Amino acid sequence: MVDIKIDRESTVPVYIQIFNGIRDMILSGAMPAGYKLPPERKLADQLGVNRSTVINAYRELKSCGLAESHVGRGTVAAGCSAGDKAVYSDTGMAGIPWDPAGMDRADVPGIPPMPWDQLFSESSLRMQDTTVRDLLKLSGRKDMVLFAAGISVQGIDSLDTLQRIQAEVIDEYGHTTVQHVPSDGFYPLRESIGKLSAARGITASAQDIMVLSGSQQGIYLCACAFIDPGDVVFVEEPTFFSAIHIFRAQGARVVGIPTDKDGMRTDLLSVLLKRFKPKLIYTIPDFQNPSGAVMNMERRQELLSLAYRNQTIILEDDPYGMLRYEGDSLPALKAMDIHGHVLYLSSFSKLLFPGFRVGWISGPQQVLHRLTLLKQMVDLHTGSLNQMIIDRFLREGLLEDHLEKSKNENRKRRDVMLEELEAAKLEGIKWNRPEGGLYLWCRLPDRMQQTALLTRSVDKGVTFVPGNIFYPGNTPGNYIRLNFTYPTPPEIKEGVRRLAAAYKEVRKEQEKYHADDHMELGPIL
Amino acid sequence: MVDIKIDRESTVPVYIQIFNGIRDMILSGAMPAGYKLPPERKLADQLGVNRSTVINAYRELKSCGLAESHVGRGTVAAGCSAGDKAVYSDTGMAGIPWDPAGMDRADVPGIPPMPWDQLFSESSLRMQDTTVRDLLKLSGRKDMVLFAAGISVQGIDSLDTLQRIQAEVIDEYGHTTVQHVPSDGFYPLRESIGKLSAARGITASAQDIMVLSGSQQGIYLCACAFIDPGDVVFVEEPTFFSAIHIFRAQGARVVGIPTDKDGMRTDLLSVLLKRFKPKLIYTIPDFQNPSGAVMNMERRQELLSLAYRNQTIILEDDPYGMLRYEGDSLPALKAMDIHGHVLYLSSFSKLLFPGFRVGWISGPQQVLHRLTLLKQMVDLHTGSLNQMIIDRFLREGLLEDHLEKSKNENRKRRDVMLEELEAAKLEGIKWNRPEGGLYLWCRLPDRMQQTALLTRSVDKGVTFVPGNIFYPGNTPGNYIRLNFTYPTPPEIKEGVRRLAAAYKEVRKEQEKYHADDHMELGPIL
Repeated sequence: MVDIKIDRESTVPVYIQIFNGIRDMILSGAMPAGYKLPPERKLADQLGVNRSTVINAYRELKSCGLAESHVGRGTVAAGCSAGDKAVYSDTGMAGIPWDPAGMDRADVPGIPPMPWDQLFSESSLRMQDTTVRDLLKLSGRKDMVLFAAGISVQGIDSLDTLQRIQAEVIDEYGHTTVQHVPSDGFYPLRESIGKLSAARGITASAQDIMVLSGSQQGIYLCACAFIDPGDVVFVEEPTFFSAIHIFRAQGARVVGIPTDKDGMRTDLLSVLLKRFKPKLIYTIPDFQNPSGAVMNMERRQELLSLAYRNQTIILEDDPYGMLRYEGDSLPALKAMDIHGHVLYLSSFSKLLFPGFRVGWISGPQQVLHRLTLLKQMVDLHTGSLNQMIIDRFLREGLLEDHLEKSKNENRKRRDVMLEELEAAKLEGIKWNRPEGGLYLWCRLPDRMQQTALLTRSVDKGVTFVPGNIFYPGNTPGNYIRLNFTYPTPPEIKEGVRRLAAAYKEVRKEQEKYHADDHMELGPIL
Repeated sequence: MVDIKIDRESTVPVYIQIFNGIRDMILSGAMPAGYKLPPERKLADQLGVNRSTVINAYRELKSCGLAESHVGRGTVAAGCSAGDKAVYSDTGMAGIPWDPAGMDRADVPGIPPMPWDQLFSESSLRMQDTTVRDLLKLSGRKDMVLFAAGISVQGIDSLDTLQRIQAEVIDEYGHTTVQHVPSDGFYPLRESIGKLSAARGITASAQDIMVLSGSQQGIYLCACAFIDPGDVVFVEEPTFFSAIHIFRAQGARVVGIPTDKDGMRTDLLSVLLKRFKPKLIYTIPDFQNPSGAVMNMERRQELLSLAYRNQTIILEDDPYGMLRYEGDSLPALKAMDIHGHVLYLSSFSKLLFPGFRVGWISGPQQVLHRLTLLKQMVDLHTGSLNQMIIDRFLREGLLEDHLEKSKNENRKRRDVMLEELEAAKLEGIKWNRPEGGLYLWCRLPDRMQQTALLTRSVDKGVTFVPGNIFYPGNTPGNYIRLNFTYPTPPEIKEGVRRLAAAYKEVRKEQEKYHADDHMELGPIL
């Protein structure tokens, strides 16, 4: 006799209630291994449910290994093994009541509650929860237009190509596709990345390259390898928000260096270097995130020169360098770095498959060696099959075609967004016209609150990233970042329409509020 | 005229020399974009090489995007863009000579060399390079028998199944297979893992589960989340060497708790807890790595009871719990944990695909939340496609079959190794007979040096893991760890033959040396 109470008011589906009831009986030893469960129809009648509901419950039990079906014997309890029965009926331990099925965590006299919040480490408490997390949650909403993304156009490749490549990789490498690879990466991929580097002017062989689980992992590993609490890190202001978090979590003092349309203001660096003696300068010279700025040639040279003279590490983050839609390329800092001060990061996340988590770092071998030791702790190695698939994409020359298509589509989408913004005639808002990358960087009127605009925009079904999170300190203006590559052109049109409506509403309300004041409009960055 | 010097004595292939020469000319601006490269045959004649060599060099140039072929125009230099020419011929910066092609890093007056070793952070210098790294390098040798591995039997699944599952996943999820997933994991996989947990007696829903890039990442994230420098962590002695490294790298004082064949000596814990007040106890209760021991039921209850009374976190690492070959299962600590002190780690690396890097942690949601913030920094998320593939394996019930086959094969291999060791009649060496897991733990005579045996064994073509790396402090004996699941039965036979030969030689030499002394044989752990 199976004694289960069905609660028809519960939000738990009935078949799960049956599953839970029988599972508890098996785990508690009430149904020992081999115990014959009632036939589906019989139990269904007893409980007053459809037979299919019982069938579903039994299927779940079998899929968990808690029950087995045998022809002629029906369904029988499996249990973990015969031993569990004894285990679960054992109450030998006085004073500690336990109930594995119920998981009752109510206070018990003499057992103080677990103070998790007090147990977290000092360094982990340096981490701030970010707006981005909430934005990611919103992104699940089907109707939402996402100007908050950080990825290139998706879905332009036929999945057939991916299927073919995967099949070929598994055919070629056999079982090694699911085995471990070295922590510094699958060697053929390191070779292929070395060759790819030439496209950015960089000479690198496999030994100069280490594969990462995304280039952000490189920021993390470099922060671990070089930053002691109290060390100073220079970043562009604004810059990639995760870099700020990572350096801070490691205990760094993060100092923002002002930027303009030609990138980091290296003319200010000389004095700041003397004053702060930073260990590391983090820079995104090409199509900077979020500003879209490109560091000009003179500044690249000046930055290198200053780093050389001050023994400063340059961490160059270049995920967008190959995503230029017009104008002339500049070489990566790494390509100009004769004294080996530059650690160079890039990624396939903006070029091919974000979900594969494959990026790389290029730098001196003694640095890669230490980063490899760190990576061994963090994830042992980047997924083998993913590395092999990307290697084959590169070797077959498929990245080139893909990149060409991506750039064309990204350019088109940028232009659609620029046109739509122009057409929306939004008074008081300005934006740049980036020659590459993924983002427009928009300056709002100083008085307009980003959060007010974001809330209203989300109401209307469009998200963006508020500018303040890109600043290590105070925000010298009021910005938002709009991604133009992830949404399709029709989505961009709809998104700008919604954004414009939100903007006009918020502006009207705030104008009323500040009716007496002047609006100040700073120059667009 | 292409001016390239071929060095026929060089180890660099001639076609790469040609490639390098032309690449440098393109990157230096000597060959501007559009510059017509000589026809293949002409350059081949000029350099005195085969035409196919030049064809190969041109192919490489094209694959790097440095050259393009046009029907009727032959091969022309592409460069990064027209802009590069100007860039690379720019020598505007006085005092800093640079030569991107040559990458000459010789000392330059006024530019001090980069002191990388002095720049590494204090915490990163806590990391020790391990024997394991060297062992991994050896593992590449084709003829080497690997008793040093840490993975289950491989290759028993048909790759066709993997191919089919992958194809189905891509068909079902389309482009989302290559997109980002949330940092805490692909939700359906978290559900599937929740169900799978029942096999270990654990009740967990998707919300209680977070996906990791291997369970070792869980040790790392927990160390970051809970350990401040100076905090004490208890571990079993011996224990998984990477856990020792990770806790130490975070600044923990790692205290080893003695063990015997029934696991951690909880009878010693009470006093030690008062004395050291550890923040966290790391334990592998089932088929411990390296000792193979299973913590008995009384000790499980005592450990939980002590943790409850002392507000201590238990980090339970359970990668081997489902790999039992005989005898009765005990429930995981987590299954018995009514007050929620246990953080539970497990992995698919020992069950399915090590190279996929998919593991999980189960624990209170406020802990998972903090770990998720940390994971966002470390790798953003675990590979999407890998998570989807494993989810489908679980949903289709394929893991059950696979596990059954794996366990049968692992048991067989264990028995082969036990028989072969027995047959080899090795005086003075003892080992256990584990009921599950992956390892035999062998005690050598106290006088025998592990390194001498390892060196001799590697000479003869067999590797193992020396026991000392599993101890946080002094080694109370002389052990080696032998994996019996990765090599095939014939390899095991051959490996034991080689190991026995090495053992006898080393023993003879050392006996001669210690001819006057008694051999002491400690009891096998």
